[in-house]
Amino acid sequence: MVERLGVAVVGGGFMGGVHAEVLTADPRVDLRWVVDRDERVGTDLATRFGARVTTTLDEALADDTVRLVVVATPAATHEPIAAQVIAAGRNVLVEKPLVLSTGHARQLAAAARERGVVLAHGGNFVYAPKFVRAHELAADREALGTVHSVRVAFRTSGPDTDWFRSKATAGGGALTDLGWHAVELCRWMLGKPAIRAVTACTRQLSAAGDVEDQGVVLIEFADGAIGQCDVSWACPGGEQLTVEVIGTEGLVTADLWQGMGVEAYTNTKFGAVWEPNQGWLRPEWEWIRNSGYVHQDRQVVDAVLDGRPTTHTPDDAVAVVETLEAAYRSAADGRKVEMNA
Amino acid sequence: MVERLGVAVVGGGFMGGVHAEVLTADPRVDLRWVVDRDERVGTDLATRFGARVTTTLDEALADDTVRLVVVATPAATHEPIAAQVIAAGRNVLVEKPLVLSTGHARQLAAAARERGVVLAHGGNFVYAPKFVRAHELAADREALGTVHSVRVAFRTSGPDTDWFRSKATAGGGALTDLGWHAVELCRWMLGKPAIRAVTACTRQLSAAGDVEDQGVVLIEFADGAIGQCDVSWACPGGEQLTVEVIGTEGLVTADLWQGMGVEAYTNTKFGAVWEPNQGWLRPEWEWIRNSGYVHQDRQVVDAVLDGRPTTHTPDDAVAVVETLEAAYRSAADGRKVEMNA
Amino acid sequence: MVERLGVAVVGGGFMGGVHAEVLTADPRVDLRWVVDRDERVGTDLATRFGARVTTTLDEALADDTVRLVVVATPAATHEPIAAQVIAAGRNVLVEKPLVLSTGHARQLAAAARERGVVLAHGGNFVYAPKFVRAHELAADREALGTVHSVRVAFRTSGPDTDWFRSKATAGGGALTDLGWHAVELCRWMLGKPAIRAVTACTRQLSAAGDVEDQGVVLIEFADGAIGQCDVSWACPGGEQLTVEVIGTEGLVTADLWQGMGVEAYTNTKFGAVWEPNQGWLRPEWEWIRNSGYVHQDRQVVDAVLDGRPTTHTPDDAVAVVETLEAAYRSAADGRKVEMNA
Amino acid sequence: MVERLGVAVVGGGFMGGVHAEVLTADPRVDLRWVVDRDERVGTDLATRFGARVTTTLDEALADDTVRLVVVATPAATHEPIAAQVIAAGRNVLVEKPLVLSTGHARQLAAAARERGVVLAHGGNFVYAPKFVRAHELAADREALGTVHSVRVAFRTSGPDTDWFRSKATAGGGALTDLGWHAVELCRWMLGKPAIRAVTACTRQLSAAGDVEDQGVVLIEFADGAIGQCDVSWACPGGEQLTVEVIGTEGLVTADLWQGMGVEAYTNTKFGAVWEPNQGWLRPEWEWIRNSGYVHQDRQVVDAVLDGRPTTHTPDDAVAVVETLEAAYRSAADGRKVEMNA
Repeated sequence: MVERLGVAVVGGGFMGGVHAEVLTADPRVDLRWVVDRDERVGTDLATRFGARVTTTLDEALADDTVRLVVVATPAATHEPIAAQVIAAGRNVLVEKPLVLSTGHARQLAAAARERGVVLAHGGNFVYAPKFVRAHELAADREALGTVHSVRVAFRTSGPDTDWFRSKATAGGGALTDLGWHAVELCRWMLGKPAIRAVTACTRQLSAAGDVEDQGVVLIEFADGAIGQCDVSWACPGGEQLTVEVIGTEGLVTADLWQGMGVEAYTNTKFGAVWEPNQGWLRPEWEWIRNSGYVHQDRQVVDAVLDGRPTTHTPDDAVAVVETLEAAYRSAADGRKVEMNA
Repeated sequence: MVERLGVAVVGGGFMGGVHAEVLTADPRVDLRWVVDRDERVGTDLATRFGARVTTTLDEALADDTVRLVVVATPAATHEPIAAQVIAAGRNVLVEKPLVLSTGHARQLAAAARERGVVLAHGGNFVYAPKFVRAHELAADREALGTVHSVRVAFRTSGPDTDWFRSKATAGGGALTDLGWHAVELCRWMLGKPAIRAVTACTRQLSAAGDVEDQGVVLIEFADGAIGQCDVSWACPGGEQLTVEVIGTEGLVTADLWQGMGVEAYTNTKFGAVWEPNQGWLRPEWEWIRNSGYVHQDRQVVDAVLDGRPTTHTPDDAVAVVETLEAAYRSAADGRKVEMNA
Repeated sequence: MVERLGVAVVGGGFMGGVHAEVLTADPRVDLRWVVDRDERVGTDLATRFGARVTTTLDEALADDTVRLVVVATPAATHEPIAAQVIAAGRNVLVEKPLVLSTGHARQLAAAARERGVVLAHGGNFVYAPKFVRAHELAADREALGTVHSVRVAFRTSGPDTDWFRSKATAGGGALTDLGWHAVELCRWMLGKPAIRAVTACTRQLSAAGDVEDQGVVLIEFADGAIGQCDVSWACPGGEQLTVEVIGTEGLVTADLWQGMGVEAYTNTKFGAVWEPNQGWLRPEWEWIRNSGYVHQDRQVVDAVLDGRPTTHTPDDAVAVVETLEAAYRSAADGRKVEMNA
Repeated sequence: MVERLGVAVVGGGFMGGVHAEVLTADPRVDLRWVVDRDERVGTDLATRFGARVTTTLDEALADDTVRLVVVATPAATHEPIAAQVIAAGRNVLVEKPLVLSTGHARQLAAAARERGVVLAHGGNFVYAPKFVRAHELAADREALGTVHSVRVAFRTSGPDTDWFRSKATAGGGALTDLGWHAVELCRWMLGKPAIRAVTACTRQLSAAGDVEDQGVVLIEFADGAIGQCDVSWACPGGEQLTVEVIGTEGLVTADLWQGMGVEAYTNTKFGAVWEPNQGWLRPEWEWIRNSGYVHQDRQVVDAVLDGRPTTHTPDDAVAVVETLEAAYRSAADGRKVEMNA
């Protein structure tokens, strides 16, 4: 019998919904509670995923089967909620930014260690399949030589929700919101060296709120590498999230939304790239899944076990074979082949 | 208790391995047999996935728990194997090309219908997430107007395995191998209209084997649309698989490996695209998964249930918060902030 | 003293204007006449470029200084006009399509040879700098191996002028208009081998006019190469003109408007490409001009000879030097440097 | 009679050669002298372009017909040479960096003003046709709204010539060499606002020389915009030079070598862009020239005036017409048309 994990999601907004959707797709997860101060918001989400709703975290924590709490509330509330969850001996996943001060981060880490619970923090992009592939390539010192530069640009047209633009609720602006990802991606791509010095400038362009909507951060790493973070809430045309890693012998770039995916260059060779494997490359990632095999075979299993119709049927196979037969005939005869439909 | 599906894979080569990997990742599947005439090949694969090995299909079919047989053998053997599997009352997934003649395709379809089993055929790319998104956009008649053209180019440097280049074992060359995908993608992108006429030319460039390694097929559909299939085994630089769908008001293109992903243009608006939604667009697909949320939350569940370490720890969160604090301080003071590491 | 060439342009429409603009920028050219049946149209163009206007070709040909006649009229009129110009012993540049039948093409060629005059035909894209570079790379047999495939796609949203859509005035539709370029580009990229066979399909989608607005042409060349021409007047989103040349060892692609320019791949090396010169490449073309040197130095010569102001002045140089000085200081001191503006 | 401009080029290296090539292509220019301390170097260049050679600037300045001197020597020598040329009452074009200190820049500017001569400085990229188009689009406040960000990345694998890596001869490293362009492009794209503050970091990665090979510069402009310059001599894979300009309603990017050219996005419309003109765009630049009309018509003029053969002859036109005729016949008959070659 598979062990099931009871989960409570705190915060019924957009990110709470994302986690509810992701977690309930895992057969090991039992989503038991949605916690939101606004009962209507909580009820909407709870109803979608068959969970209970409550307006107090206490009620969810009173449920012994709840072993993981996901915190998806405005940033300034992360610390007290996470502290309460840990104190109750439960594992916790806190959306980014984990907290707003180094002191709080260290306290939570110490508390989690002491209670023996998992303290995980959001920052989804370091798990994104495309970036995981870029990270693998960036770690190939044979192909890249000494890596000396990393740059992350993360630009959006700004948040939809008001609390993001208030220092009281969000702690900061674009730098807190997008900069979290940018800094984490820079560190990760380099193998998480220590940081020696930081130089930054920020600016508030928008009349709304009291936080910066643009920031540029230069990071000097202990290994000599330089990181650049370029974040903006004032960029039209759709979300841009790009990573560049440059070494003495090669480079890797990855563009999450607007561009092609992963590009790499090497003067030598990568260890984990198919042919061609010299000069400029566009390596695949998760090729079995991206080729459709996972979705295809799942449909076949669904069809056998559940009697669900498949998207493509034997009639389709007949049509394709007929077309190929006609094509061979046409090529042989040098004339158009009419199909008797 | 979850019902489990007993599976036998016939053919222990590359594609047999792909299906074994994909199917065994599904907790509902129990891979019981690998069937291969070459016992060594079969044993290698069976061992990797904890299945039994046999050199005869009969032995696998004698196992009552086997309800799905996956056929991943050279093309010319598909028909007799699939016929035997269906006759034994088992569901079957046959790699493309299903069979090599329309007559055989119809016979198998009829037999499967009669025995009440699922007959599924490979052709994974019509399940590929990127192309599924392109298909959704291509079906948006408000955004595309009347769709009149579709084109699929599928170019590789040719198969690694010898049997592909022999008419006796493969039935045909690039047209049979890659053309299957190209024809199916064209039909699907248009909504599977009937085919009125086919014109083609093929050519053998390579000295190896006795089949064509290039083919161009023009398809006239009953709804007036024109399809172009451009397939080649003689293209260096890595696999190219692109789809273009053009209508009177808009178009959709998708590049599986070399290019950016999905691009679309519309004179009007798409129903299922976020802002920006005018002119040229680069729509996302599977954004929750591609953003990393699925991988992130799975790591957290693994950590709680199985005690596995997460890739990113509270120490990382501390480092990010410290950096952001330093960035805010630097921006405020106009000077570099040194970190006391 | 530089010899000057007297020119008459026949046809005061869009293409007549393009040639007038291009030719009058050449100091060796003296544009003397614009000929148009519609005096108002002719006058507009003639006035813009300081030429005389006439409604009859005879009047322009009566001018002894006219040595070159540019024919930019609807396609069906090309043959009689060109014949008259050649008969009058004058050189002639005829916009594409030169004429509408092979017989007429041969007659004009013979007549020009006999009279010793230049007979040139439009088809500007085989002179386009980007495609000239692609052609140079495509001719590198060391890098490409045996070239076996060429493809040109030329897609627009259709002509603005009515006469293009009438068989009586234009001779044909998209195939005559865009197909001319596509066929010529295919031949040229391959080194102009003879053509062995042609297969095509065309279709009229639009209710306007009586000519095809889409065509696909397969060309089998005497050297075994296959050419594909894909032309359309029914493609939204802006003009697409792409060329692909594929060989056994490499390939070259060039995208005139929508894409990056020239891309190439080789398993070996190109003779005329800078580093990097392996794998996938993005070769430059006309790099001195595209870098701005021609425009820069011309501004300097204009400034000296004609006293024209340059776009960028010594004040700009002062600002740049000041900024670089501040940057060096900031890097040395680890703090922001304020400029005393 | 066309007035001719006598020119002397000082420095017979790579850049001296570029200017010699560019200037001698202008019929108004008479390249009279190449000046180089190394007589062999000077002789090579002078011979290529039919100029005299000398090892002393004095000798070139003694020639009264020399009215423009181009200075293409190592950076540290620019100031004394330019000062001497201006003192001699001659116009001067100095390669970038004009000089190495603000004081020297102001002195030269004052001296040129006083003597009434043109003082021009290199910095070719602000004249590059693609960037000129990007600049035009970036200046469209209707389309871009308030422009708040500009970024230039200029990355190469470093200079080929040793003097670039020595502070004594070059004044500085990548920041002096590439940063000049980056700063000038930032200023220009924004309309040259005053600069309020500069923050930078630099680093020397290479063991060769005594100058930085990487630099990042943040510029705060008086109008509130932020500029980022990212320059590197340590980037493999070929030269990267990209410009990004971002406003509240739209953005413009231009990639000189590796990417597509110019891309733009607007929530509104551009004043100077053809259809499509909404959302994401890829505007053309110098379309007449890039289409090949200039090169085509020049060939025709050359053929008439000089009897030079054209690249494409009437035989080509015959072949194209024959192919189009065959295509129409094939489309009508539904069969391949064999050509009687």
